[in-house]
Amino acid sequence: MKTLRARDIGLACGTLPTGALNSIADVPGVLVGHLTLMHDDIRTGVTAIVPHDGNLYRRKPIAAAHVLNGFGKSTGLVQVEELGVIETPILLTNTLSVGTCFTALVRHAVAHNPDIGRETATVNPIVMECNDGYLNDIQALAVTEEDACAAIEAASSQVEIGSVGAGCGMRAFGFKSGIGTSSRRIDLDEQSFHLGLLVLANFGRPGDLRLPDGRKIAPVSTRANAPEKGSIIIVAATDIPLSDRQLKRVIRRSGAGLARLGSFWGHGSGDIALGFTTANMIAHDEQAALTELRALNENRIDLLFEAMADATQEAVLDSLVAAQPMTGRAGHHMPALRDTLVHLTRKAEIP
Amino acid sequence: MKTLRARDIGLACGTLPTGALNSIADVPGVLVGHLTLMHDDIRTGVTAIVPHDGNLYRRKPIAAAHVLNGFGKSTGLVQVEELGVIETPILLTNTLSVGTCFTALVRHAVAHNPDIGRETATVNPIVMECNDGYLNDIQALAVTEEDACAAIEAASSQVEIGSVGAGCGMRAFGFKSGIGTSSRRIDLDEQSFHLGLLVLANFGRPGDLRLPDGRKIAPVSTRANAPEKGSIIIVAATDIPLSDRQLKRVIRRSGAGLARLGSFWGHGSGDIALGFTTANMIAHDEQAALTELRALNENRIDLLFEAMADATQEAVLDSLVAAQPMTGRAGHHMPALRDTLVHLTRKAEIP
Amino acid sequence: MKTLRARDIGLACGTLPTGALNSIADVPGVLVGHLTLMHDDIRTGVTAIVPHDGNLYRRKPIAAAHVLNGFGKSTGLVQVEELGVIETPILLTNTLSVGTCFTALVRHAVAHNPDIGRETATVNPIVMECNDGYLNDIQALAVTEEDACAAIEAASSQVEIGSVGAGCGMRAFGFKSGIGTSSRRIDLDEQSFHLGLLVLANFGRPGDLRLPDGRKIAPVSTRANAPEKGSIIIVAATDIPLSDRQLKRVIRRSGAGLARLGSFWGHGSGDIALGFTTANMIAHDEQAALTELRALNENRIDLLFEAMADATQEAVLDSLVAAQPMTGRAGHHMPALRDTLVHLTRKAEIP
Amino acid sequence: MKTLRARDIGLACGTLPTGALNSIADVPGVLVGHLTLMHDDIRTGVTAIVPHDGNLYRRKPIAAAHVLNGFGKSTGLVQVEELGVIETPILLTNTLSVGTCFTALVRHAVAHNPDIGRETATVNPIVMECNDGYLNDIQALAVTEEDACAAIEAASSQVEIGSVGAGCGMRAFGFKSGIGTSSRRIDLDEQSFHLGLLVLANFGRPGDLRLPDGRKIAPVSTRANAPEKGSIIIVAATDIPLSDRQLKRVIRRSGAGLARLGSFWGHGSGDIALGFTTANMIAHDEQAALTELRALNENRIDLLFEAMADATQEAVLDSLVAAQPMTGRAGHHMPALRDTLVHLTRKAEIP
Repeated sequence: MKTLRARDIGLACGTLPTGALNSIADVPGVLVGHLTLMHDDIRTGVTAIVPHDGNLYRRKPIAAAHVLNGFGKSTGLVQVEELGVIETPILLTNTLSVGTCFTALVRHAVAHNPDIGRETATVNPIVMECNDGYLNDIQALAVTEEDACAAIEAASSQVEIGSVGAGCGMRAFGFKSGIGTSSRRIDLDEQSFHLGLLVLANFGRPGDLRLPDGRKIAPVSTRANAPEKGSIIIVAATDIPLSDRQLKRVIRRSGAGLARLGSFWGHGSGDIALGFTTANMIAHDEQAALTELRALNENRIDLLFEAMADATQEAVLDSLVAAQPMTGRAGHHMPALRDTLVHLTRKAEIP
Repeated sequence: MKTLRARDIGLACGTLPTGALNSIADVPGVLVGHLTLMHDDIRTGVTAIVPHDGNLYRRKPIAAAHVLNGFGKSTGLVQVEELGVIETPILLTNTLSVGTCFTALVRHAVAHNPDIGRETATVNPIVMECNDGYLNDIQALAVTEEDACAAIEAASSQVEIGSVGAGCGMRAFGFKSGIGTSSRRIDLDEQSFHLGLLVLANFGRPGDLRLPDGRKIAPVSTRANAPEKGSIIIVAATDIPLSDRQLKRVIRRSGAGLARLGSFWGHGSGDIALGFTTANMIAHDEQAALTELRALNENRIDLLFEAMADATQEAVLDSLVAAQPMTGRAGHHMPALRDTLVHLTRKAEIP
Repeated sequence: MKTLRARDIGLACGTLPTGALNSIADVPGVLVGHLTLMHDDIRTGVTAIVPHDGNLYRRKPIAAAHVLNGFGKSTGLVQVEELGVIETPILLTNTLSVGTCFTALVRHAVAHNPDIGRETATVNPIVMECNDGYLNDIQALAVTEEDACAAIEAASSQVEIGSVGAGCGMRAFGFKSGIGTSSRRIDLDEQSFHLGLLVLANFGRPGDLRLPDGRKIAPVSTRANAPEKGSIIIVAATDIPLSDRQLKRVIRRSGAGLARLGSFWGHGSGDIALGFTTANMIAHDEQAALTELRALNENRIDLLFEAMADATQEAVLDSLVAAQPMTGRAGHHMPALRDTLVHLTRKAEIP
Repeated sequence: MKTLRARDIGLACGTLPTGALNSIADVPGVLVGHLTLMHDDIRTGVTAIVPHDGNLYRRKPIAAAHVLNGFGKSTGLVQVEELGVIETPILLTNTLSVGTCFTALVRHAVAHNPDIGRETATVNPIVMECNDGYLNDIQALAVTEEDACAAIEAASSQVEIGSVGAGCGMRAFGFKSGIGTSSRRIDLDEQSFHLGLLVLANFGRPGDLRLPDGRKIAPVSTRANAPEKGSIIIVAATDIPLSDRQLKRVIRRSGAGLARLGSFWGHGSGDIALGFTTANMIAHDEQAALTELRALNENRIDLLFEAMADATQEAVLDSLVAAQPMTGRAGHHMPALRDTLVHLTRKAEIP
């Protein structure tokens, strides 16, 4: 059965064209893999974003991170801020499994680079997380190092969305959510490039969701005063050559996409964006003292800002539209946005 | 004639109650003054926000700044970041007059504190700006030190909005804009407090404006590909006791309000927020080594986040709704949002 | 046998008085524990700093972090930056064991707070690291979760220094180093307070070490062009009431202490400082909306700056002086500073 | 009479070779000009650093700023942080004259670029400052816009040091100081490059000064408990191609140079570094969407870190050694370091 996507039901965002897949994999070489754990009270998993299929430690994509709200436990961001590169796949998982994924990335990097921690430096694992404790028995620490590696090995350009991988047990705005993706095509100097996004969406107060046409959508039955303990991770990829500073400016605009959805980046939400470009790689073993890089003429950057805001908004909707209802830990249940939308006529809901 | 306000025509934002004035002056003691220059090709001015009517250098409000997009020329933010206080009135003006206002604040502080630069430290003037060069002959540097002082002296709790003071020549989303204000009442521990805002709005691409009900509003005739060279300054005041870190978190949510209006914080826009609290003052001549402060239980801060996003959105709409059409430098003309809204029926415009 | 300390051999730094123990444990309630692993090619361990012996998740010390050079893999700093508190013990270990220590802190917190990730938020583990790969088989990932917990359980006010805990396999300036500690007594308003430090020292190029009297000290035989792949972690504790911003300013001065030792905060060095105060605690379950805090009159903060710089310098010397020579992985050997100093006459070495 | 320099009297710092002039002007194209005001109670001035002799607004050097301690009133740093370029000469002056120099830079830029604020954006003036209020009647605001322009027009590759320009009334560590400069030659890929520095030194407690050989030097008569109300501005130039992030990392090491001199970056000191490279220019009117940049292989950056720390240390000593004693406002007097050094025998002073 074909996965339902936001755009399929009229929830496109903005006016820029999407890539062919409307996915982060529209950026050539970028792969995504999931490992989903769903049994008993376990509703969790791991999602891996692999920037290119070569040795990431040897060829590091230029990267940047931006913390929209730092109530989060991601690893690796300190070094990204200092050096402007990443050198491992990016793993997404539940909050309490960050340590396990860190160790898995260490072992993965050492297996491919036996000089790590000996003849050369150590490695900076990138792990980002959301709290799926409502549907998942997060205290079980169900994710294993093998699970994390399996997500990396499963990586392909076919990006599954909804309740898969790290998205298995997530929820947003009172609905079941999970993984979403979107992309925008950007033409520069008569060449086509892409900005692609993947989100792990687990944020937003029930009742605050706003669709692109302005409608506010609440779940039919909402727990009163539902505590907002969510988070959202946004991973952006592009083949446009950018400096790390430019990348940081671009991914910062994910916040505008979230705000359009009805979020004000709540106190308890770890809202973090990470971006990388495959068009500028740093060689670990570079011999030359001076290197060539390409960058964007910054006078054109508004195009990327707009793409980032639009694609963030759409990728979150994607994660909501794709997800089926789910019952999890302790009988907790999250309805699906798709089912609520069916019951609504558009006109009746406009405030 | 009564000034038209956003809320008068149904453009209220969010569900929290406003203060009695729906203005930054709902925060007890906060005063605002304008000096407007409007002759020949000059459409500019100065707006002063005065946190309290005592000696600000001697009793410094705790403060914080947040740069949403740093294409701007404000002064004083480096020291606010380091020390978490302000010690002068906050002046808003056009970009090229920042130096003049800096000097005016220096003379103003020295006049009231003759020990400055002698027996005690120097002073950190806070000046923030937008570029009004479309309607104003900004190269004329029309603002004088006397004008800046006159704005301070004019400060009162009656906050004028629209094309006044620094707002005289500003525009936003293709419409005439200027100064706007809004507030929210926040009840904590059975006591009423306020978060009040004043904005100098000069940002947003024509066609991008979105009203609270979801309608997109474009000016009837827009220059194609109008360059986005604007900015927005947001000044927040509160009588809720906050630490500088808490204040910074709160004012950061101004970005969510801007995004709801249709902005993605454009490249060329200096989008900067500054906030202060009148509930925590630092005495310049403090003798005790240890002092008492109050702070907010951070578990309640979402209420302030929501208020900040809502009030930013509404204050910008206020600045647009209050403004009359204006013709300025070189015959440049900006229409008024109010006139466009008259021509629209609500239903017809929903996308 | 009594451990040799820097001050025992004339390497005192600065003129401020030390605390009674000249250790981080001069700050009442602060405890330190080590677990040392030393067999075959393993030379590593875990060091735990426990801010108070109550439930840290329920009573969170105000805290701040400062990144001097971000080539490091610490966890938890993003949330410290956002919220200004810590809520777990601080674990120090080798770079590749960060994930394991993260998981150990998760289990430790959940065991004491069964509502984590269920009725309340998740937990933010603080783990900091240096690379001990020269003497230790770091690829073995020898540290277990049980080891990490054992370090916490071993915590006491008797702070062991030298090649213990996380310091087991560390080196600095071409000498064996490890854990060092120091403190300064600070009198305010006729009351005595302390600033205490613990360092995990693993940085500095051979030949760059400078003693407090200006002497430069090189190891007798140094590998030519030894790669600088080290790091230093500085943990500061105080019972002086400080805001998180004030704490951040204080711990930043650790960089001055390092510079006096001959470091310029090398590219490959993860130089990170974390500080907390036991005089300002945030209750996880606070019910009141407004709370009282105390802070330092910032006009007095230079005293803390000086103490921080002096104590950092001395704690590093402490880690060097206390360490015995060690042979580790692959026969790698690090000499002891104490042995080099014996061979030197003071006068002869002054440049 | 030839100006005395630090190196002339054995105060060289580090082991890297200097450039031919041991000055910021060793970086090809960089020019420095001074305007000195010295009459009655006035001891102040303006110093201009001109990165290249073309139109800076049209060809913007890549730049970065780093705030070591933000008790300062510089302008322009917000935009440098956002965009990574400068577009005006850099002016140094006394604290209260920042506004006047801002305005002067505005007029200077508009005169050369009449489209500013009309067809194109506005301009971001860079002004940095120290407080010379001990020797200078700073309240007189003696600097005029014409003075600022005169400093720019006087710019040449012959860099005067000591009590000239903005350095006229400055002091450091209880001695007369002012402007200092230094450079290091750096060879990369068989090509010679330079890192050059200019400092405006006005910091340091009397008695804290430490010479490169470890000696502490106090002025003969020091006011007890002299308030530390100083600052230091460090401007770095290089012809090595660096990204703005790399530049920021490099200039941050100025803090290590200051610490070696005995500073711990005091509370009341605005210690700010700004750097630019002439090897990467951004064209204001760039038409291509993608541009080429060069950057340093970051594995080599330690060489620049070392050069930055060494040259900062030496440039400050330069400013002290070059300065003659001065009597200024209200009969205040500052002795010269050179006179104190004459009275010292080296051996006797080693602590």
